[in-house]
Amino acid sequence: MSRENPDVIDSLEKAFRLLQVFSHEHPSLTISEAAELSGLTRPTARRILLTMVSLGFAEADGKRFSLTPKVMRLGFAYLSALPYWETAQPHMRRLAAELNESCSMATLDGNEIVYLTRVPGNRSMVTTLNTGSRLPAYATSMGKVLLAHLKPAALDRYLAEVELVPLTPSTITDPEELRSVLAEARARGYATADGEREEGIRSAAAPVFARGGSVVAAVNVSANAARVSHERLVSEYVPALVETARTISDEIGAVTVMH
Amino acid sequence: MSRENPDVIDSLEKAFRLLQVFSHEHPSLTISEAAELSGLTRPTARRILLTMVSLGFAEADGKRFSLTPKVMRLGFAYLSALPYWETAQPHMRRLAAELNESCSMATLDGNEIVYLTRVPGNRSMVTTLNTGSRLPAYATSMGKVLLAHLKPAALDRYLAEVELVPLTPSTITDPEELRSVLAEARARGYATADGEREEGIRSAAAPVFARGGSVVAAVNVSANAARVSHERLVSEYVPALVETARTISDEIGAVTVMH
Repeated sequence: MSRENPDVIDSLEKAFRLLQVFSHEHPSLTISEAAELSGLTRPTARRILLTMVSLGFAEADGKRFSLTPKVMRLGFAYLSALPYWETAQPHMRRLAAELNESCSMATLDGNEIVYLTRVPGNRSMVTTLNTGSRLPAYATSMGKVLLAHLKPAALDRYLAEVELVPLTPSTITDPEELRSVLAEARARGYATADGEREEGIRSAAAPVFARGGSVVAAVNVSANAARVSHERLVSEYVPALVETARTISDEIGAVTVMH
Repeated sequence: MSRENPDVIDSLEKAFRLLQVFSHEHPSLTISEAAELSGLTRPTARRILLTMVSLGFAEADGKRFSLTPKVMRLGFAYLSALPYWETAQPHMRRLAAELNESCSMATLDGNEIVYLTRVPGNRSMVTTLNTGSRLPAYATSMGKVLLAHLKPAALDRYLAEVELVPLTPSTITDPEELRSVLAEARARGYATADGEREEGIRSAAAPVFARGGSVVAAVNVSANAARVSHERLVSEYVPALVETARTISDEIGAVTVMH
């Protein structure tokens, strides 16, 4: 493929890289700043930024460039193409209402989970987690479920590569301990996380299966640890959660048939 | 700019176009299907799809290509760069809890509003509206607020171009009627939509101002029309909504100073 037109690969790779240096810390960038943050040369950064302006994906205010809402069309091409995104939402809403806790769905992207959707519960703590949010997989219940269903070679690669940073005193930082926790989660059909990413938050997650048995996403319920004990999470919340994940999985099977 | 390297513009434009043909109806595509839907030639579609695979933004399953969650990084570069996205959420959540109705924030992208975030109320009707959802501006309260604050030339262009499709019997389909509704919304500081996009849904929206006075987004509350009369929407919901929009605007001013 690179034989045909290496410029295409090259310019796409650079454009996607440059797009991702815009962030909460860097909502607008000069050409020099964009070049520095992306590791591109100044002329390349300039060319891509001007191209994005001409395509309506960025706008310039004097020397500063920022992204436009048109950029969201790119990210949502993925979401709207997910056969299970819309299907899952009524079930997640029902679970959130039943337990009065927030219910989320995420999938794995590299070493991170990425939130596909989140239904806040009535008692939900203030959080900025929402569609598109990313968290390290190893410290979250949804991440554990998704890692637990990786193929063995992919899991080995993950455990060999990942840096298990202690985000709280409860974070699992030993790869072999994580491996056994994941095996247990896979056998049980759910995973929990007790303050491992953030103290005071306890959650449980269950896998969503596509037709054919591969795990495509995880759903979770998340609760205030001061209010919901681990025992209550497992005895009250997990059965309802697992049932919801199963219903979503069944419907995905039905949806997949139509495509 | 095109003098320097027209290929860059060209390949980016085509790649962004191809990315957007993936959808709920077309979650996976063959090269031929992608070419047909995007209007690109088959060799170009093939080259871009293979490039996206090599960059991790797409994956191939036999002859069918689909997007990966990595694509969401692109859309969320925009969201996370918005200085008001995180700022607004606690205030929106408070409003949703106070009124027990859903509260959303959107911005304008061309002739559509695009949802930045949505906090469902406890009594919210089942809906698939969420971050990234798009609706025609003229039939929604947030769209009216955003159109109402366009510069006069941009509004004239919008009204000359837009096709005001009747989505319900209440949709405003006369451009001059819409113009006067927008002028009124601007003067009052809020807009309403009474079943104009979907029968049975009533909403009100207010503008979010950046420092300098430009309108960057709108926030709304949306209610079941059978439960909340237009009079109650205006007398009870609008004051709380306008206050929330003002608080968010004030905080954006403060945030902007830091950048």
